[in-house]
Amino acid sequence: MSQHRKDLLVEVGQFVEQVYQMGVREVVLSPGSRVAPLALAFVRHPHIKTRTVSDERSAAFIALGIAQQTNSPVVIACTSGTAALDYAPAVAEAFYQRIPLIVLTADRPTEWIDQWDGQTIRQQNIFGGHVKKSFQMPVDLTHDEAKWYRRRIGAEALQKALDYPQGPIQINWPLREPFYPEEGEEFVYDSENAKAVKVIKSETYLDQDTWEEEILPIVQSVKKILIVAGQGQREDSIVESFNQLNIPVVSDIISNYGNATSAIIHQDVFLKAECIEALQPDVLITFGMSVISKNLKLFLRKNPPKYHIHLQEGGEVPDPFMALSTVVRSTPDAFFDQLSELEFDEEYLEEWKSADEKVKANRIDFFELLTFSELEVVNHLLSELPENSVLHLANSMSVRYANFLGLERDDVDVYANRGTSGIDGSTSTAIGHAISDPDRTHFLLTGDLAFFYDRNAFWNNYLPKNLKVVLLNNQGGVIFRMIDGPTRQPELEEYFETHQRTSAKFLAEEFQCKYWEANSREEFYFSYDSFLNELENVSIFEVFTDKNISKNTFKAFKREGLYSK
Amino acid sequence: MSQHRKDLLVEVGQFVEQVYQMGVREVVLSPGSRVAPLALAFVRHPHIKTRTVSDERSAAFIALGIAQQTNSPVVIACTSGTAALDYAPAVAEAFYQRIPLIVLTADRPTEWIDQWDGQTIRQQNIFGGHVKKSFQMPVDLTHDEAKWYRRRIGAEALQKALDYPQGPIQINWPLREPFYPEEGEEFVYDSENAKAVKVIKSETYLDQDTWEEEILPIVQSVKKILIVAGQGQREDSIVESFNQLNIPVVSDIISNYGNATSAIIHQDVFLKAECIEALQPDVLITFGMSVISKNLKLFLRKNPPKYHIHLQEGGEVPDPFMALSTVVRSTPDAFFDQLSELEFDEEYLEEWKSADEKVKANRIDFFELLTFSELEVVNHLLSELPENSVLHLANSMSVRYANFLGLERDDVDVYANRGTSGIDGSTSTAIGHAISDPDRTHFLLTGDLAFFYDRNAFWNNYLPKNLKVVLLNNQGGVIFRMIDGPTRQPELEEYFETHQRTSAKFLAEEFQCKYWEANSREEFYFSYDSFLNELENVSIFEVFTDKNISKNTFKAFKREGLYSK
Repeated sequence: MSQHRKDLLVEVGQFVEQVYQMGVREVVLSPGSRVAPLALAFVRHPHIKTRTVSDERSAAFIALGIAQQTNSPVVIACTSGTAALDYAPAVAEAFYQRIPLIVLTADRPTEWIDQWDGQTIRQQNIFGGHVKKSFQMPVDLTHDEAKWYRRRIGAEALQKALDYPQGPIQINWPLREPFYPEEGEEFVYDSENAKAVKVIKSETYLDQDTWEEEILPIVQSVKKILIVAGQGQREDSIVESFNQLNIPVVSDIISNYGNATSAIIHQDVFLKAECIEALQPDVLITFGMSVISKNLKLFLRKNPPKYHIHLQEGGEVPDPFMALSTVVRSTPDAFFDQLSELEFDEEYLEEWKSADEKVKANRIDFFELLTFSELEVVNHLLSELPENSVLHLANSMSVRYANFLGLERDDVDVYANRGTSGIDGSTSTAIGHAISDPDRTHFLLTGDLAFFYDRNAFWNNYLPKNLKVVLLNNQGGVIFRMIDGPTRQPELEEYFETHQRTSAKFLAEEFQCKYWEANSREEFYFSYDSFLNELENVSIFEVFTDKNISKNTFKAFKREGLYSK
Repeated sequence: MSQHRKDLLVEVGQFVEQVYQMGVREVVLSPGSRVAPLALAFVRHPHIKTRTVSDERSAAFIALGIAQQTNSPVVIACTSGTAALDYAPAVAEAFYQRIPLIVLTADRPTEWIDQWDGQTIRQQNIFGGHVKKSFQMPVDLTHDEAKWYRRRIGAEALQKALDYPQGPIQINWPLREPFYPEEGEEFVYDSENAKAVKVIKSETYLDQDTWEEEILPIVQSVKKILIVAGQGQREDSIVESFNQLNIPVVSDIISNYGNATSAIIHQDVFLKAECIEALQPDVLITFGMSVISKNLKLFLRKNPPKYHIHLQEGGEVPDPFMALSTVVRSTPDAFFDQLSELEFDEEYLEEWKSADEKVKANRIDFFELLTFSELEVVNHLLSELPENSVLHLANSMSVRYANFLGLERDDVDVYANRGTSGIDGSTSTAIGHAISDPDRTHFLLTGDLAFFYDRNAFWNNYLPKNLKVVLLNNQGGVIFRMIDGPTRQPELEEYFETHQRTSAKFLAEEFQCKYWEANSREEFYFSYDSFLNELENVSIFEVFTDKNISKNTFKAFKREGLYSK
């Protein structure tokens, strides 16, 4: 065996063992020759689960879903050339949603770049600003210091991806031929010498003095404190703190705090940009990531609080409400636990609650007198979510509809690709979640643009029978009818909505999914239970709706729910 | 009207007029709100053709095809967020194939980046090293110098894209609301003041003294001169020069010089890495871009010429044969015209010709005694190409098969995405070609991986009825069976070939393409004419073949054609 290949098989095997020891359990591979030694080393590792997905765009979103669902770093590995670029949308989503995606791009040796060789492009730092760091493996691994550098990169990369805030990293690995193991040659997985670096984490919370000096003077000087939860998964200890606090907690559906007793979930319905003095906070406390509710954002930007405290243990802090005054380097959990020991006046909470309750009351028989619409479908989906299920919301109207209606469940987890709000990987992401969480039913609410955009999500051998897709097909991007600007343009239909008569039934047949369709309220309710009860295949329920009716229902719901005194 | 919007409508309109004056006639838009002012300005321009394609990955490849076919710069314009990243594979292909793609990415104003706002990512310089330059438009266009800067960027960007070697550029344009034209508001297309910059080109050729001092001593000192044509389109004047020269011209199928009398087209069959002294050149003259023939590359790398002259009027010069000695800054046309006045010994040409002829002779009844295979399908496709048609070859086996067999036609243009050799956009690229060249029939030879990868190529309203797809479906990447490395791995089927039982018939039904399938030689020949004669729809002929037979036929063809003396 050549010294080169001998070193390569050892180093690749040890790299795989190293990332295994640092937390990697799942890998999504895309086929190719250059990536083969890396892929084979993952496939042959005894404790790592690998899957192969051909379209790298979908592969990366599937991996994103797995990483998010398992709360663990996931490796994606692709061959050299544009494959890496097809990863880019999911990498950007991982960056803004702080998901530890380990992006392993096989490369040709550097000397072959720009030499008109096949599948050879400029892969170093190819994800630009959308990875936390980009690493370049040494191509020659014979020298001892090159071996140490290889080990160091493996450890540094995992550490970087997992450090708060988590995020994607790239390891570009140029591989020189020959790199296929010959018969009898083995990858080395030497757990003793893999040189994983253990990272021991500390607690991050404010000590009592700091709390008393910095926080108490702010929160005790005012009456109106508002908490806004950004995107994130529910922590039960935080719910407990909220339930002890008389402070309104505005929770988007993707913030997952709709079950707190002080939760406000219809903010996007009852708020508008104009000032509502009774609701304007003096102190705004935020945690988590992005907020969907456009009206909440406009309201807070136009009616800024005196103080805006954001809780985030490290990293860059955005200022989405244009009012940031204070960054607290504490976990939200610790902060709210400290806060919950204080007493607050209920009046301000009541004001928010009454606005929220009005929408809830309106919702009960709102749909009865109206023509069948997308909002009604979403309302039914949300109302009928089974126990312990998971809800995935595609961009853009699906997640907005669902956020308008809100959810108060403590047994349902809600996810959406709101890091970048792209439509390019919603289905793949849901599939990633569902395959790594087979005991729960995963629902995906999506529109026709997002669904057909990511149709290659179905092009793999892992379609999870616990996935149910509700597809709102209005033949184009109804979202543009919701915005004033496009509606006024004569090009609305042709340019914005990209009108096409599509149906998912062909795709369902191709990929052996179970398929239902409905063109009316009767058909929808008639089939819904059968859709819910299917257990053997991916289930797709395609609901054809009328754009204008859906638009007007949405507007009516908002109009009736607007804040008024 | 606000001053901001007034300035915006003027500047956007003038930008569109400016790029129109600098050569843009076609635009491929993808829908979105942020990009709307740019899109509407293109749609409303009286002389620019716009199309809307939802999946940006496909949109960019379609535009690449249009640009290549029309030999003109084409604009692609998308909304903010990951849409730009979905463009990236085609942008890289354009970069390495030197195609002037004008990539216009709408953006949020810079202050909103990283603020958890929807569809807001780090778009500046998002294509990294795969554009010739990245420009950032000023967000505020009220100041006179900002307006001048806007104009300058428009002119500089087009100039840069069109300068030799051509290539993609990015213009990132942050757009501040409000940006939708209100009723009665118009974009301004003021042709007098659009400030297009006219670029006057000069001839690039060697003067007589330089020719005599630098070139003659090289080409007259040796007997064995070899010309290798890289990827590019045929120029008739070059063919004329070749026909006067007794020099072998090795032409890959994508080099389009197979019709020259001195053309060698089966190099990939009869060559191997080992030295063949009779064929080893003393002087190698190359022009054009990449070479497919792996055996030619290996042969030349192992048996280097004394001189390797590459003809390229400007830009970086790769060294794919590891032997570059001389760069001539002349057009190939002018150089070969000068060269054709010299006399060369025929012996070396005869040596190459006899090797080539042996393969040609073998090909005539090679398939008759063998089981039906992919190579036979390709052979038939190539033999039956109608007059004045266009052939598109997908990566990776399709283009290799076709290159093995070669083409000697002077009325067929051959294209393939060999800039990066990706499988991600072959169908979309062919569609771009076909829609901008409706009078010729365009054939696409593709495999199942490339075909299904780019299935969204069909998701638009412009499917060209002059497109015919021959789809070799072997249920996975047969290419990995052709390489020794993967064949020896137990994971061959599961990992490399990503075995899936796919069929294009569902997709054909969904998108109303005419569909034929064949599972045997009889079925194939029985249906082929009907496939050829269909005129009303995209035609897809899916041929199901056996991987192992296809592999063995391919190897047999090579074995029988190998050079021997």
